[in-house]
Amino acid sequence: MLNFDFHTPTYFDFGDGAEKNVGKLVRLFGGTKVLLHYGGGSVKRNGVYDAVVSSLNEASLPFIELGGVKPNPRSGLVYEGIELCRREGVDFVLAIGGGSSIDSAKAIAMGVPYDGDFWDFFGGTKTPEAALPVGTVLTIAAAGSEGSYNAVITLEDGNIKAGNNPSVVCRPKFSIMNPRYTFSLPPYQTACGITDMMAHICERYFTNTKNVDVTDRLSEVLLKTIIANAPTAVNVPDDYDSHAEIMWAGMLAHNNLVGVGREQDWSSHGMEHELSALFDVAHGAGLAVVMPAWMEFVVTHDIARFAQFAVRVWGCDLDYANPEKTAREGIARFKAFLRSIGMPITLSELGIPEDAIPKLVAHRAKIGFPLGSFVKIGADEMTAILNLAK
Amino acid sequence: MLNFDFHTPTYFDFGDGAEKNVGKLVRLFGGTKVLLHYGGGSVKRNGVYDAVVSSLNEASLPFIELGGVKPNPRSGLVYEGIELCRREGVDFVLAIGGGSSIDSAKAIAMGVPYDGDFWDFFGGTKTPEAALPVGTVLTIAAAGSEGSYNAVITLEDGNIKAGNNPSVVCRPKFSIMNPRYTFSLPPYQTACGITDMMAHICERYFTNTKNVDVTDRLSEVLLKTIIANAPTAVNVPDDYDSHAEIMWAGMLAHNNLVGVGREQDWSSHGMEHELSALFDVAHGAGLAVVMPAWMEFVVTHDIARFAQFAVRVWGCDLDYANPEKTAREGIARFKAFLRSIGMPITLSELGIPEDAIPKLVAHRAKIGFPLGSFVKIGADEMTAILNLAK
Repeated sequence: MLNFDFHTPTYFDFGDGAEKNVGKLVRLFGGTKVLLHYGGGSVKRNGVYDAVVSSLNEASLPFIELGGVKPNPRSGLVYEGIELCRREGVDFVLAIGGGSSIDSAKAIAMGVPYDGDFWDFFGGTKTPEAALPVGTVLTIAAAGSEGSYNAVITLEDGNIKAGNNPSVVCRPKFSIMNPRYTFSLPPYQTACGITDMMAHICERYFTNTKNVDVTDRLSEVLLKTIIANAPTAVNVPDDYDSHAEIMWAGMLAHNNLVGVGREQDWSSHGMEHELSALFDVAHGAGLAVVMPAWMEFVVTHDIARFAQFAVRVWGCDLDYANPEKTAREGIARFKAFLRSIGMPITLSELGIPEDAIPKLVAHRAKIGFPLGSFVKIGADEMTAILNLAK
Repeated sequence: MLNFDFHTPTYFDFGDGAEKNVGKLVRLFGGTKVLLHYGGGSVKRNGVYDAVVSSLNEASLPFIELGGVKPNPRSGLVYEGIELCRREGVDFVLAIGGGSSIDSAKAIAMGVPYDGDFWDFFGGTKTPEAALPVGTVLTIAAAGSEGSYNAVITLEDGNIKAGNNPSVVCRPKFSIMNPRYTFSLPPYQTACGITDMMAHICERYFTNTKNVDVTDRLSEVLLKTIIANAPTAVNVPDDYDSHAEIMWAGMLAHNNLVGVGREQDWSSHGMEHELSALFDVAHGAGLAVVMPAWMEFVVTHDIARFAQFAVRVWGCDLDYANPEKTAREGIARFKAFLRSIGMPITLSELGIPEDAIPKLVAHRAKIGFPLGSFVKIGADEMTAILNLAK
């Protein structure tokens, strides 16, 4: 086990009706003027916007609004939000939505007190030392941004999708998680979210660090919880319990509980960011294509680990004489599961032609190789992985 | 799943050498004058005291000391600590040790800014709204107090052992967790700690709340981690990895990660507090006696739940035709495990005579019945459980 630190100060208010507390929570964490930040009309259609506004009014909290966050959130809106907050004296950023709205809110919050360009924290080497406080009202179980110190933004100039250099100042002060607000998502988007949270666990699980038993086991059961509850959550939009399990598991998948004490990989996310940046595919769908292909490419690097994954997560019987067979069976079950919840598992299903592979690799090369740590992924390896996924 | 909130702002610095950061961390959390609070000579013998003092000196942090915390920490030292902090203008309480030192430090920290008697937060109905910041340097993996908002103190007048009415202000600001400082513990004490953390999970696991899949599974694997690593941790004092697994699992067992979304029980802790209050037995040893007896007494209340515990935690094969047999097998394995790590499992092994049972029940009656929620435990039920344990 490696040395680590773990600091998760976000206050979670989870359950039916939790959104009624938003005004009180903004006040508790020092907000006096709020930027409401969200995407499109869905937050207005499903009632969460009205509930939040009513709670802010009850707490006599003035607010201004900035909607229009898109999936794979863009730098342009972040710059606009930073200017708006400065001009209007906003001291609290409240995101309503999923990872895109929350990530955009975090980027705005980092940018407001910073003299330079907020992108320094993403493309560059700077780590934010201060940020406006952020609160979230979560409506999509996926990115785990409600409990993480991570954000991912796409720089419009050059289509570069990058994560921030994380700091505890980027963790939300509070997150309100009412599973009912995830009921109205289309099944495809629910499945994308499920894929994303599974990837957050796998990126931390496939490691070269030995003796991380507790972190391993926690990872495995979060995956099992997600696998057990996904079919109902995808197919029965108003089933409270399965959506609640998925929502809470999604937060735990990315607050780093399952990452501590070990080296992490993140090469699948790195490759997927290129798919999203150049083809604007849903992040979860991109991961459903890239991650199993990555697994097939690296499986022989540590057959024991993939066999453990197959047995403990996917319920495979261990073939003691031939653990590689079990290891490959685990990957096959992962792919079958992704397909069963409606995910694409090839580039062509995603609408990305085979001849785009060199362009994707070249675009990544501009940011830099290698990716990952479990196995180092350079341009040749990325090409091979995308060819496995075609 | 029930609605819940979850707020765990403690900063954890885990691993070999982490104690070197203590001065920096006290400064980070606003301390300028420190009370060093600890038990006996062990912290001086194993080097942790010197390492902490050296780090405080390096950070130019003045400190005063109050040693002498005993297992089942007493109110007298808490009153003394409160007076000392007020007199000396202390603004940060730093505990070195295990749950006893940390709980005593928390009680002092709650008491300093409070006008009334600190015991109002324990025996009474008051909840602390402010407290001095507390940091911990953990040397015993057991109580989980390093990450919890709980403390347990024994009021000397009347021998009443009680927990506080918890509040986030009672969570430590930081906890330093270096597994090496648990190496020098006698095996019996390591085993007591292991029993305590298992009880923290079980008290939350046996619940009448349905559909808490993710919390269930996290509970089960923390138990499995503890069970898998306990034999080595108890028998090989200098095995870093097993002590690291146990230490981190012990924190997660009690920061309420495995409690959220469901009703919790805590009747075994309630009964054990009487054993400790009247006979001053080690808390973990008392739990090893009480908890399996409680399980035997309540098993028929929810055979399915105990069968799940037996299969998922203890690896029993489910007897589909007779799940009660499996349920009882799980409890038997728990008892066999406790015995294997050197724990007593009867009152007589603890040195408590059978004829003390009425006195223990009568002493509890003064605080009040019923205990628990899974099954309500009144005086008759407590008598029956202690008779099962005699």
